[in-house]
Amino acid sequence: MGPHPAVADVRRAVRTALAGLPPGSLTLVAASGGADSLALAAAAGFEAPRAGLKAGLVTVDHGLQEGSADQAATVVRLASRLGLDPAEAVRVEVGRAGGPEAAARDARYAALEGAAERLGAAAVLLGHTRDDQAETVLLGLARGSGTRSLSGMSAESGLYRRPLLEVSRATTRAACAALGLDPWDDPHNADPRFTRVRVRERVLPVLEAELGPGVAEALARTARQCREDADALDAWAGSAFESARAAAQGDFARSDIALDVGEVAGLPGAVRRRVLRRAAVAAGSPAGSVSAAHILAVDRLLTGWRGQRGIDLPGGVAAVRRYGTLILARKPG
Amino acid sequence: MGPHPAVADVRRAVRTALAGLPPGSLTLVAASGGADSLALAAAAGFEAPRAGLKAGLVTVDHGLQEGSADQAATVVRLASRLGLDPAEAVRVEVGRAGGPEAAARDARYAALEGAAERLGAAAVLLGHTRDDQAETVLLGLARGSGTRSLSGMSAESGLYRRPLLEVSRATTRAACAALGLDPWDDPHNADPRFTRVRVRERVLPVLEAELGPGVAEALARTARQCREDADALDAWAGSAFESARAAAQGDFARSDIALDVGEVAGLPGAVRRRVLRRAAVAAGSPAGSVSAAHILAVDRLLTGWRGQRGIDLPGGVAAVRRYGTLILARKPG
Repeated sequence: MGPHPAVADVRRAVRTALAGLPPGSLTLVAASGGADSLALAAAAGFEAPRAGLKAGLVTVDHGLQEGSADQAATVVRLASRLGLDPAEAVRVEVGRAGGPEAAARDARYAALEGAAERLGAAAVLLGHTRDDQAETVLLGLARGSGTRSLSGMSAESGLYRRPLLEVSRATTRAACAALGLDPWDDPHNADPRFTRVRVRERVLPVLEAELGPGVAEALARTARQCREDADALDAWAGSAFESARAAAQGDFARSDIALDVGEVAGLPGAVRRRVLRRAAVAAGSPAGSVSAAHILAVDRLLTGWRGQRGIDLPGGVAAVRRYGTLILARKPG
Repeated sequence: MGPHPAVADVRRAVRTALAGLPPGSLTLVAASGGADSLALAAAAGFEAPRAGLKAGLVTVDHGLQEGSADQAATVVRLASRLGLDPAEAVRVEVGRAGGPEAAARDARYAALEGAAERLGAAAVLLGHTRDDQAETVLLGLARGSGTRSLSGMSAESGLYRRPLLEVSRATTRAACAALGLDPWDDPHNADPRFTRVRVRERVLPVLEAELGPGVAEALARTARQCREDADALDAWAGSAFESARAAAQGDFARSDIALDVGEVAGLPGAVRRRVLRRAAVAAGSPAGSVSAAHILAVDRLLTGWRGQRGIDLPGGVAAVRRYGTLILARKPG
């Protein structure tokens, strides 16, 4: 008799994600002890040795709840039952920067990267499911910041792999039940002060009820397509940026970002604005502070030129047009 | 004293939309008599003469509700009060193709185009608001069919202009109230059998409550950005398609669509799949029947080539690879 279908689904997803890792290398599962990461850990413990790889586990103790150290110790003990070795709990200090969700996430990723480096891991597996992806897309949609923010989480990014992005949360729960694993329900996952929790508990159920049961899948599909679109447009913008820099004429400092106006103005709007964002960041504006309104103002130096003054950008950068050249540079301090 | 702020907002939007129309030309407002189209009609009646243009009105009687002819006659009578001339009611027969919403829409657009031709109109103004745009984006999102389906309705497309895509429904209601206009509430707009009505009445209010009051605006912004992205990618795909056709080598019929495999395979996924979709349609597959799965199968002839057989596409078209050439052609009948 084969494994339970949910167990088979999770294993198949993990097998695909492990493909191509260096033979004999170590992969770490990032596990909270929730259903998603337990199912992932069990599948990695099963699949890694069959693929000639080693699998270990890291659980991050955020120290935000009473008993969090015990919970972390429980996950570590479970790891050996699942064939994962080494298994470690890492205690982190969560700061306050960017709000409670962002601060906890930053601390968690820093701890995972530290553990991966210390243990020499080739990859870290994260347990995000299709439902997490759907929530991420809805959060991006509410921000209204375009294709990139709709593209959700990537299946592979640097050290991280997310094997379960096409697997539902219901499947990971079923897999845990079939394997006799008792997942931990993080109380944060039900705390309605978190926007993501409200999306999960209140928004997605309404979407499913009113638009049909395939919404989470459709959102995950949207994420994949938007990611591909955004990647293609970024590639275009990257080569257009280099080409416009190479064509720039005139007198400017080596550290300035100078672009040929004709080359940039001839691009479609979606590419032109990506080139201008790239130029602003290359000139020293912090990426997170450059708004759509900033880029639109710089764009008007190209497409609505009537001799206007320079545009101030974040980080003490200014954009000015001189004849056929757009120059972005740090203002003299 | 100037006009009420809501009236001023609608007029400003209409003024922008009328800019660039030929002097003295006629613009028709498509009006149901609801708040959106009444506010639009009032603004067009005010702005058109000031811009040296003429404005008229067409109301479509779908004949689906008792008293629909009376309602249409009421709208036509109102038109002269608003300075719109000519004003006509057009009765249409609604078929069944594609479901009730699609059939009514098809009949309505055919009637509007007929009226525009008959009356020699240069443009038809539609009253879709930012809220309609937000609903359209959510419907596209639920389909999960990518950037193009997230890009909503365009502000300008052929004969049609949608001046109110950045104006809220609340503003059109306030404008009607300020002008003493009594809008008609179409009972279809409250019928929960229509998906769009459920999105309006049940989904958007939950999104606003859980994610914040700016959701409709964020969705409309998403639509604008996705439309620009989709336009840029279509432009890239269009020139890549021509270039790959020009580079194709080998023996094939003039009516076949032949593409150089090397040129297409080197494109980013988002562009490659758009080129393949274009090729399928050019070879005779009906655009609406070509699925993502079809395109993926053709894509594997390029990126996963192991000598596989040809791929059957809708409309009796087949895609085959012969050495370095991909050929899409109608199969001999």
